Amino acid sequence: MYESLALVGATGAVGTIVRQLLEERKFPFKKIKFLASKRSAGTTLDFAGKTYTVEELCPEAFDDVDLVIASTPDEVAAEFCPWAVARGAVVVDESGFHRMQKDVPLVVPEVNPEAIHQHKGIIASPNCSTTQMVVAMAPLHAAARIKRVVVSTYQAASGAGLAGERDLKQGAQAALSGDAYKYETFAHPLAFNLIPQIGGPKHEQYTSEEMKMVWETHKIFGDDTIRVCPTCIRVPVSNCHSESILVETETKLTAAEARKLFEAAPGITVIDDLASGQYPMPKNCNQKDDVFIGRIREDLSSDNGITFWCVSDNLRKGAATNAVQIAELLVASQAAV
Amino acid sequence: MYESLALVGATGAVGTIVRQLLEERKFPFKKIKFLASKRSAGTTLDFAGKTYTVEELCPEAFDDVDLVIASTPDEVAAEFCPWAVARGAVVVDESGFHRMQKDVPLVVPEVNPEAIHQHKGIIASPNCSTTQMVVAMAPLHAAARIKRVVVSTYQAASGAGLAGERDLKQGAQAALSGDAYKYETFAHPLAFNLIPQIGGPKHEQYTSEEMKMVWETHKIFGDDTIRVCPTCIRVPVSNCHSESILVETETKLTAAEARKLFEAAPGITVIDDLASGQYPMPKNCNQKDDVFIGRIREDLSSDNGITFWCVSDNLRKGAATNAVQIAELLVASQAAV
Repeated sequence: MYESLALVGATGAVGTIVRQLLEERKFPFKKIKFLASKRSAGTTLDFAGKTYTVEELCPEAFDDVDLVIASTPDEVAAEFCPWAVARGAVVVDESGFHRMQKDVPLVVPEVNPEAIHQHKGIIASPNCSTTQMVVAMAPLHAAARIKRVVVSTYQAASGAGLAGERDLKQGAQAALSGDAYKYETFAHPLAFNLIPQIGGPKHEQYTSEEMKMVWETHKIFGDDTIRVCPTCIRVPVSNCHSESILVETETKLTAAEARKLFEAAPGITVIDDLASGQYPMPKNCNQKDDVFIGRIREDLSSDNGITFWCVSDNLRKGAATNAVQIAELLVASQAAV
Repeated sequence: MYESLALVGATGAVGTIVRQLLEERKFPFKKIKFLASKRSAGTTLDFAGKTYTVEELCPEAFDDVDLVIASTPDEVAAEFCPWAVARGAVVVDESGFHRMQKDVPLVVPEVNPEAIHQHKGIIASPNCSTTQMVVAMAPLHAAARIKRVVVSTYQAASGAGLAGERDLKQGAQAALSGDAYKYETFAHPLAFNLIPQIGGPKHEQYTSEEMKMVWETHKIFGDDTIRVCPTCIRVPVSNCHSESILVETETKLTAAEARKLFEAAPGITVIDDLASGQYPMPKNCNQKDDVFIGRIREDLSSDNGITFWCVSDNLRKGAATNAVQIAELLVASQAAV
């Protein structure tokens, strides 16, 4: 029974959207509590017509909790998840800490919903840049088997949380005024610039963000043979990650076939009319739950390739929405029992 | 003899840099004149310690001219180039109009300098997004033969001229202040956004900007078998185009070998130290003449692939610098005779 809910990281960028989504989607629960770090504990927030006091994250906070939706840094997740699991709760964890652990399913409901049944207390939600890519890959993979992916990302400041968005705005204002500005979240100026590094060096000169796109994709599709070459770039966009994706499939797909597959797939909206200037952009995908796809065309550089442009709200489908969808799957599976 | 010089489009974004470069590089000439549209004619500009009046572009303006460096829109180039050629001048044309014409060499001095000798009065300089890519490709192609390129661009507002840069600044200021702003140069808001279209639809749902990267690359390398898949994206950066490039070669190159080839190549500066956060960015490549390369690594998705990040000042190497270098080749070839 998932009747008593806890949101961990309830006051952060993603936690705030999780709250909105639970309200909007009328997520069922009998009790709910909001947990955050010591710094935010004691503040109040409004949810579903009531005012709640944010409680401090501690082991006992999970004493009466069945289901946790958590969005915290990795080191926080490492600490609190065992507290919740020891008390019988199931945690939907947005952090990167558990994603690649063997007994933790890594789930995107449009792609591998059945994986939730393998959980041992923790279900992980993938990294934002992976999630939108695998949603886009899924219908093509099912139809023609994807063998290879080349992806270059255009990732928004909000990937670094509320502080990242603030940093970009303040940095842009300073740049326009000719003032100096010391960035808090980014190692280099982001306004009117690009930073070709997200995360630290991880593997063969690829960053941790890039390797997440390789390893998480393998785990989600259950197929280590899909070869992925990622390049992750931070761009001066407030919110919504964009990706230029090229896939090579075992059997040939035409652009028209790929478009039909995208159009029929859950969680995908196609916006693709180049002649009239219609395609997904951060500005028109902001605060939406879907993965948006446009610029669909056949690869000029291979015989079985499809290339396209993919935009999604990284705080929503890339984080909050995916976590809430996993929680909904759990509730539905319990109802089915 | 290239003694009497004319600059066409002398007051534009690129023309202004051409003037700086001619001064900086002590380009040899006996006479020089500055030509522009009716709107700019009559204004004055300082060059090499003297003040010149900008003259209106008309056939007779080329009566006593040997060498023209021109940066104008395509339709202007189509009109004036025959005036200059008919009067015996050689035109280095930055516009897109002549690039793919059979009897017009398309030249990047680091790549195909010998092609200048085939000219019949006009030598074209490639599109900015092509130029930096072929400079980067050249040493790898010479060593291991490039069979395929997948490129995603991150193109600056200055690609749309001075008005493009102004548009981005004014649009960003309006966005920060919460004001409305009508973009003059871009079909969609550019500040804090991305526009996945540069140029109109051209071929199989690829844009004209994208097809330039295919067709110009073929012409410059004299090899139509190199397969190129381009995706061109406008990003909210003032100046300097960036490109995420993956090349597949006939024979295997290691990352270390590719790096050595880049380091030894003319016109390339390698900045590549991920551990200490050093790589090319628009901010550190601005107003420089080289093509900057970093994030060099072996492709995880193929056996013979190298992927890297490439940044260059699109107004300099992407336009003005390349045109001046072609003019220098002409002067040097004349000296050699």
